[in-house]
Amino acid sequence: MKDVVAAETRLSRVDGMAGELTIAGFSLDEFAEKATFEETVYLLWHDALPTPHQLSEFTDALTSRRPLSTATLDLLRAASKQHIPTIDALRMGASTLSLGQAESTDSSRDDALRLVSALPTIAAAYWRLKGGNAPVDPDPDLGHAANYLYMLTGEPPGHQRSRAMETYLNTIVDHGLNASTFTARVITSTRSDMISSITGALGALKGPLHGGAPGPALDMVLEIGKKENIEPYLRAKLERGERLMGFGHAVYKVRDPRADVLAEAARRFYESGGDRDLYELAMEVERKAVELLEAYKPGRNLQTNVEFYTALLLHGLELPTELFTPTFALGRVAGWTAHCFEQKALDQIIRPKSVYRGANDRKWVPADERC
Amino acid sequence: MKDVVAAETRLSRVDGMAGELTIAGFSLDEFAEKATFEETVYLLWHDALPTPHQLSEFTDALTSRRPLSTATLDLLRAASKQHIPTIDALRMGASTLSLGQAESTDSSRDDALRLVSALPTIAAAYWRLKGGNAPVDPDPDLGHAANYLYMLTGEPPGHQRSRAMETYLNTIVDHGLNASTFTARVITSTRSDMISSITGALGALKGPLHGGAPGPALDMVLEIGKKENIEPYLRAKLERGERLMGFGHAVYKVRDPRADVLAEAARRFYESGGDRDLYELAMEVERKAVELLEAYKPGRNLQTNVEFYTALLLHGLELPTELFTPTFALGRVAGWTAHCFEQKALDQIIRPKSVYRGANDRKWVPADERC
Repeated sequence: MKDVVAAETRLSRVDGMAGELTIAGFSLDEFAEKATFEETVYLLWHDALPTPHQLSEFTDALTSRRPLSTATLDLLRAASKQHIPTIDALRMGASTLSLGQAESTDSSRDDALRLVSALPTIAAAYWRLKGGNAPVDPDPDLGHAANYLYMLTGEPPGHQRSRAMETYLNTIVDHGLNASTFTARVITSTRSDMISSITGALGALKGPLHGGAPGPALDMVLEIGKKENIEPYLRAKLERGERLMGFGHAVYKVRDPRADVLAEAARRFYESGGDRDLYELAMEVERKAVELLEAYKPGRNLQTNVEFYTALLLHGLELPTELFTPTFALGRVAGWTAHCFEQKALDQIIRPKSVYRGANDRKWVPADERC
Repeated sequence: MKDVVAAETRLSRVDGMAGELTIAGFSLDEFAEKATFEETVYLLWHDALPTPHQLSEFTDALTSRRPLSTATLDLLRAASKQHIPTIDALRMGASTLSLGQAESTDSSRDDALRLVSALPTIAAAYWRLKGGNAPVDPDPDLGHAANYLYMLTGEPPGHQRSRAMETYLNTIVDHGLNASTFTARVITSTRSDMISSITGALGALKGPLHGGAPGPALDMVLEIGKKENIEPYLRAKLERGERLMGFGHAVYKVRDPRADVLAEAARRFYESGGDRDLYELAMEVERKAVELLEAYKPGRNLQTNVEFYTALLLHGLELPTELFTPTFALGRVAGWTAHCFEQKALDQIIRPKSVYRGANDRKWVPADERC
């Protein structure tokens, strides 16, 4: 399937050879550090940046949809007692957003607003419940990214932390037709609803082959622990033929443009606080890893990918690795919903063919004659 | 996408030109009226019919997984108060089956068993709650199909009713790479889990373009009401250029082989009871519709499809139209899970490409300078 074109889109363009990512007409580095997440969602849905008036209306529409129903909270509470992974709880919780769905012939805009707004509330509430803490109600005076951090900790985050989270969410908001986005489009293509489509996409994002799981990149830095260990650790891993997590990408043959944006965001964030030793260790690991990869795998040009800096940035924001993939979903849901709007407007079912490679002309044998 | 081959499968072959459907090596009419649903599920998963010993073990494994957790029942109760459609409640309930998931590195077989077993319990419990009735606990002494009818009504169904339901479930168990099956495979292709995959598939099945919604075919027969109305009603509809629901199929250019099997099942069922007047009216509507379609749309060869007889059979079993698509899912889940096993063994991500048709080189403008 990897060479099949399954959709036209105005949402993003991934140029793997040039290392460029365009989001709704903007080069990633042109907007990711400037836009609020609300502006980015508006941009994807409307193909234009909002005027101040439009942004204020849009922000209100999102903010008012953050709280969860009692039924959703009860389910998260029950799930937390079984300690299921947060990504599964997020999928379950997303599916319950059909409760309270507007009764109109087309509720897709309302559903999309509720998904973007309420997924952070689900993730944060579940994470707190799992840790034995009461959920923190959303604060309507905080922006989308700041409110997510607030609901996780109960502490209003400062500007630096909010900006770092906002830049992260903007950076991973859309990326061509990855498997979760494609899932959302296939479901929408049957004229199903937005909640069903995004619930499906969350299921696809969970899979480790999807690439939304930056935990292992961080684990490597933490395992290395100090500068003297970097070279022996990396060499041992490469000698054993193991992959270095956080380097190389299926699509990008040069440096992942998202890595640049997140590297800059991480640099700024760690300058203002956080574990500077870890940051400097990670920088050294990166430098050495790229150098050694070139030595061990010449010509492959394996560069730092988005996962490496995602891990560094989210760890700096004190997010545990279990929240990395769920947090990725909180950004990507803006792209998913935008793709659903595109697919809905197209109104064409996605239904490929299969080829049969099985038996033929089998004859029925009653159970007591089978052996 | 419709000419793209996205998977090889040993599960089913749809030959639209010849009007043939092969399920795991059997022509549909060779097994659909003979097999129990448990045998059919085993056949799809194992590519062979079970011996009596294997069948007994397999049936026990399914039967023991029918009951729902308190968390799932609480959610269905809350959903029933909002009267959301049963297909949405089924998707929500399916997503909660991650609760109680086996903690093993590969829970896919256990998950698949729980999905096949528990989806009927979810559909029946929700339907009863929505109608203000208490759910009926599954009866371990009844087979899969009989137990579903029992949980809907609280009355153990006779042999004829159980056999009719079993034949229906067998008939729609798999059908090439339709949109819901494809959704399940895309999700599994990321190495995600079975619950996530089937939850996604349920979301796709909901869409009216999927073709799992036989309600409108029955509505037409009920609207016609008596024999004298058949010809004027159908002619008026065709003159207005409207589609006759229950006739024609995107893939089958001759008669849908599933229609034959269900026609025979319906004939037997209505012989033994049910509303014989309705059955005879439906037969007359079918005969006239095919005749008039040939006159109004010569050469198109629009024949009775699976939806027409599904509607007739499920209505005979006293299922309301709202349960038609959910009941379709209870059969198709066997095919979905079998496709997930195939895709899992292949272990290859499904990730097509998109083409960008959007703006380029946009420049950031601060909010207060936008107009």
